Amino acid sequence: MSKRKGTNAERELIKKFWENSWAAIRSAGSGKTRHPNPDILAANAKAVYAIECKSSSKREVRIERSQIDDLVSFSSVFRADPVVAVRFNHTPWFFLAPDILERVPSGNVKIRFEHAKENGLGFDEFFRKA
Amino acid sequence: MSKRKGTNAERELIKKFWENSWAAIRSAGSGKTRHPNPDILAANAKAVYAIECKSSSKREVRIERSQIDDLVSFSSVFRADPVVAVRFNHTPWFFLAPDILERVPSGNVKIRFEHAKENGLGFDEFFRKA
Repeated sequence: MSKRKGTNAERELIKKFWENSWAAIRSAGSGKTRHPNPDILAANAKAVYAIECKSSSKREVRIERSQIDDLVSFSSVFRADPVVAVRFNHTPWFFLAPDILERVPSGNVKIRFEHAKENGLGFDEFFRKA
Repeated sequence: MSKRKGTNAERELIKKFWENSWAAIRSAGSGKTRHPNPDILAANAKAVYAIECKSSSKREVRIERSQIDDLVSFSSVFRADPVVAVRFNHTPWFFLAPDILERVPSGNVKIRFEHAKENGLGFDEFFRKA
């Protein structure tokens, strides 16, 4: 996926947070700094989330183990809840906590559309419960 | 001040947070989005701060009233404490809460070096107390 498409997907998600009375920002230089850096931070009176976003035109997305490790370690210091947001072509966003992600033997994460649909939650389910 | 210099100042501050056991990120597209957007978000187990950064080679910096309003409204939704970080040439950072900033008649903010030095707190004073 191009960087621009990734950015657009993140912006779309940011908009959704604001529409639902959350404050959210995109982080600058995600993946380019020495410190762990989630794609999005969102919070309201009830919760704080650090979010790694992935969108794909295929039926699965891969995420490096180190990216998940960074998301979890950032969240631990910032006191946020880590979550992975994934969207496939023409599907809504699915939200998955790191501990329910499928791993390949190397430890990297593979999110299949079917797995996301079955185990992930939609925006309303995930963030209204928060 | 050039955009690059501003970015470098923000990066320097981010580094300082991590060195002091805070998690911090720079926000992307500060000032370019429709939603309020602080320059930096920093948090640890004790507090969450939304930070507007200004650095200047002069003896004073100006901040538009709307930027302060955005900082405060963002902080209100995100449940962060708003703070302005300011640094002049060859001085350390000073941290000032929005309510102690000096206003010019238009409502815009003017931070003079002398005012920052007298009323602002250094990193350790401001964030160790947090």
